[in-house]
Amino acid sequence: MSSHHIIREKQEPALLIANGEACQPELIGQLLEWSPTVVVLDRAIWRVFELGIKVDVLLGDFDRDFDVEAVRAQQYPLEILHTPDQDKTDLEKGIEYLIERGYPAVNIVWATGRRADHSLTNMTNIVRYKDQIRIVMFDDHSKFFPLVGRYEKWYEAGTILSLIPVGTVTGMKTEGLRYNLNNETLTIGYRTSSSNEAAQDGFVRIEVETGDLLIMECWD
Amino acid sequence: MSSHHIIREKQEPALLIANGEACQPELIGQLLEWSPTVVVLDRAIWRVFELGIKVDVLLGDFDRDFDVEAVRAQQYPLEILHTPDQDKTDLEKGIEYLIERGYPAVNIVWATGRRADHSLTNMTNIVRYKDQIRIVMFDDHSKFFPLVGRYEKWYEAGTILSLIPVGTVTGMKTEGLRYNLNNETLTIGYRTSSSNEAAQDGFVRIEVETGDLLIMECWD
Repeated sequence: MSSHHIIREKQEPALLIANGEACQPELIGQLLEWSPTVVVLDRAIWRVFELGIKVDVLLGDFDRDFDVEAVRAQQYPLEILHTPDQDKTDLEKGIEYLIERGYPAVNIVWATGRRADHSLTNMTNIVRYKDQIRIVMFDDHSKFFPLVGRYEKWYEAGTILSLIPVGTVTGMKTEGLRYNLNNETLTIGYRTSSSNEAAQDGFVRIEVETGDLLIMECWD
Repeated sequence: MSSHHIIREKQEPALLIANGEACQPELIGQLLEWSPTVVVLDRAIWRVFELGIKVDVLLGDFDRDFDVEAVRAQQYPLEILHTPDQDKTDLEKGIEYLIERGYPAVNIVWATGRRADHSLTNMTNIVRYKDQIRIVMFDDHSKFFPLVGRYEKWYEAGTILSLIPVGTVTGMKTEGLRYNLNNETLTIGYRTSSSNEAAQDGFVRIEVETGDLLIMECWD
């Protein structure tokens, strides 16, 4: 779906396809619309090839009999990076690759679902990169991203917004929500603001003093 | 699959079916083997009825045109509890119901997948109940539970174990893992022990000084 004849200015968010549950092809189609750089993690490559997506970079530790040559035979050109560092997940390696190459933003799909440990770490580990690259994670029921600075966006009344701290956030203030927070502390596992919603058509504003917050737009 | 002619001693873990992604019917079948008390959350009830499972308790806030009478017509007896508290998720209400009724343990399914906000909060909120009820959460790729006290279990070499802090854990020590921890600190979003594994056939031991840890057995 993407073309390699386009000179990329790295203004568009890259697309990073992880190795969790696949989303609807329409979602990937939308994210491919502006021909982003496409990075695929490890064994997801076979499922991505089946969708006919042109891949720029394949990255992984390629353990368990992964046949790199078979991948190479499928598509050319394709940058293949062997990243055996056991201290990092594939998703972390993918994000760090994009930071090193100077990408300002990345959309991530297939990072949720399937193994709960991968899903949980993928969802929460993105906060550590929030000051280096703009990250948005998508699946068929969710769009979410770490809060950076002060957040302000117009929402339709009733739009569901879940505000989940990764660790503890302090000094959290919101405006425009059904259940607003006024200088409060949230702690993962104990107190979050799940399934909050826009109180009316209008701006929602969110800020925190310290800590990492995920802003999650989700739907059934 | 369960029978209501059994006198229950509440020794068996109850089965709590949440409203996320359904698991393979075989998994539910195994968990139903000893005729546990079955609690279902909100709209999951229709999918549970389709599987022919006898339900003991339906619990939820029943918003958005939920037809309670249609549910009642499907199965009798069935305890239906309207729990409109907006400060708690349905899963929290289900767990607290079982604690109040004196159940020592609960197995939870359908709590992961689908909406990322639900999945993330369901996976992490179980830690707050760890001293009141034994909780194990299952899906098709995962079995996980909060660490309570000191953990010791025999594993086959290579069994994957992910150790994910919900917040921060300090003084973490392990034995029997490929990457052992020796009095270390883990923090969600920053440093976890994802995709660790049993170093050999033998006991794995895990303990922490402070904080909440999820022990996750996961497979592809």
